[in-house]
Amino acid sequence: MAERTVYFVSDQTGVTAETLGHSLLTQFDGVEFRTVTVPFVNDLDKALELTRRIDRNASRTGWRPIVFTSFVQEELRSPLLACNGLVLDLFAAFIGPLEDELQMSSSHTLGRAHGMTDVTRYDMRISAMNFAMDADDGHGTRQYDRADVILTGVSRSGKTPTCLYLALQYGIFAANYPLAEEDLESGELPVILRRFRGKLYGLTIETSRLRQIRLERRPEGRYASAQQVSYELRSAERLFKRLGIPFIDTTHCSIEEIASTILSETGIERRANP
Amino acid sequence: MAERTVYFVSDQTGVTAETLGHSLLTQFDGVEFRTVTVPFVNDLDKALELTRRIDRNASRTGWRPIVFTSFVQEELRSPLLACNGLVLDLFAAFIGPLEDELQMSSSHTLGRAHGMTDVTRYDMRISAMNFAMDADDGHGTRQYDRADVILTGVSRSGKTPTCLYLALQYGIFAANYPLAEEDLESGELPVILRRFRGKLYGLTIETSRLRQIRLERRPEGRYASAQQVSYELRSAERLFKRLGIPFIDTTHCSIEEIASTILSETGIERRANP
Repeated sequence: MAERTVYFVSDQTGVTAETLGHSLLTQFDGVEFRTVTVPFVNDLDKALELTRRIDRNASRTGWRPIVFTSFVQEELRSPLLACNGLVLDLFAAFIGPLEDELQMSSSHTLGRAHGMTDVTRYDMRISAMNFAMDADDGHGTRQYDRADVILTGVSRSGKTPTCLYLALQYGIFAANYPLAEEDLESGELPVILRRFRGKLYGLTIETSRLRQIRLERRPEGRYASAQQVSYELRSAERLFKRLGIPFIDTTHCSIEEIASTILSETGIERRANP
Repeated sequence: MAERTVYFVSDQTGVTAETLGHSLLTQFDGVEFRTVTVPFVNDLDKALELTRRIDRNASRTGWRPIVFTSFVQEELRSPLLACNGLVLDLFAAFIGPLEDELQMSSSHTLGRAHGMTDVTRYDMRISAMNFAMDADDGHGTRQYDRADVILTGVSRSGKTPTCLYLALQYGIFAANYPLAEEDLESGELPVILRRFRGKLYGLTIETSRLRQIRLERRPEGRYASAQQVSYELRSAERLFKRLGIPFIDTTHCSIEEIASTILSETGIERRANP
């Protein structure tokens, strides 16, 4: 089958259209999709120009493009509806039922979803990100009082990406503390973590996957050796189990899955929205 | 009006339901929404239990909850359709038209959207994040050959959050280099950046907003003084203009808006999906 072009179109950033659109596309195996995001289509000229571009793509490829739109300004959607593509409008499908349910009209205001309308919530995400950077890899332990969660585990088990994702996506204050060899040898929690046991969440990972990740990072020395990796992982897991620290195996989990699991299991509330 | 409870429900992470759901809710002013994400509802028992929970909420509050669902497994959605809430299913609305258009059935496979099915794309996001961490704040300049884009601007103009967002969301390799006082005084690009002029993208910000951000970070000294901040910003902007470096004023822009603008203007292609 030929490649299908998919457009994610919005008068705002296009993030919503991308997110839902990609989720839907993953359900169709064997089709090659070429995706194009077209953000900030915020006047009629841009909407008309895009319509012509989509039509040219249809003529050239011989296939109707798929067009996910999330226009807040309804009047900008109209030209696109006339294009030679399958137009799926994410807002139109749901705004009506929501207006009926809430018995009010929607505001059609731009910049709400991924803009800065709610500055407090937005600033929370930036503060959380600064916190994650400052409290990465065992640094910034003096700020642990402010942490919502402290991830711990051996080097390269997925702590940093998860912390940054929790911060950027949800405004969660996440620190991370690596379990070093001396911690693993003693079989005890590092002193600094003991006061914060209720905030700890462990990450673990299968030996073979961790070796692969470490080999890419630092191939020489025992850092990525099978024996070392396996020893560290076994010791860390034993520590988690003995102290009743909840933990997750990240081997087959994406950052999104790790983050969702942690929030769901700890009950930590999201401070901001994706 | 009373608070309305909104559930984001999925047999996967719930990220898609959250993203579209929040976008829609921002269009209704004056309603207080209490949002709850319920991920990994991946068997019938969990679906039934959630249905009862939603019904209890409806009885207690006297309002019908709003339920955004994005089930890949259709049979799990059925119990929820009977709940005493407004159920808006993100997949059901669009999977049908897509199946017709593509003339094939969808696969209903779990873990596709925010899982690790496409390991290459997933690893790209993690590599990009490691790159952003290694090449933050003027470090890792030896890796600039691999950068898709190098953000530059004065301290706290938004470089780091934007780089991390570009990495985590899209697998873009983004470095950032701060313009220090000596660079601004000379009126020339730092030597290291000259070879990479085509990759540069400038960030600027209004004086008052930057002062506010810097005051929170380091209130003492001239770092946050009106004179210093204004001098740095004027010099940086002059440099961008003189050398024809594209730049964006981040004062009223969210990370999503900055990232969308940069990708849209430079034409850098996304390597992975949100």
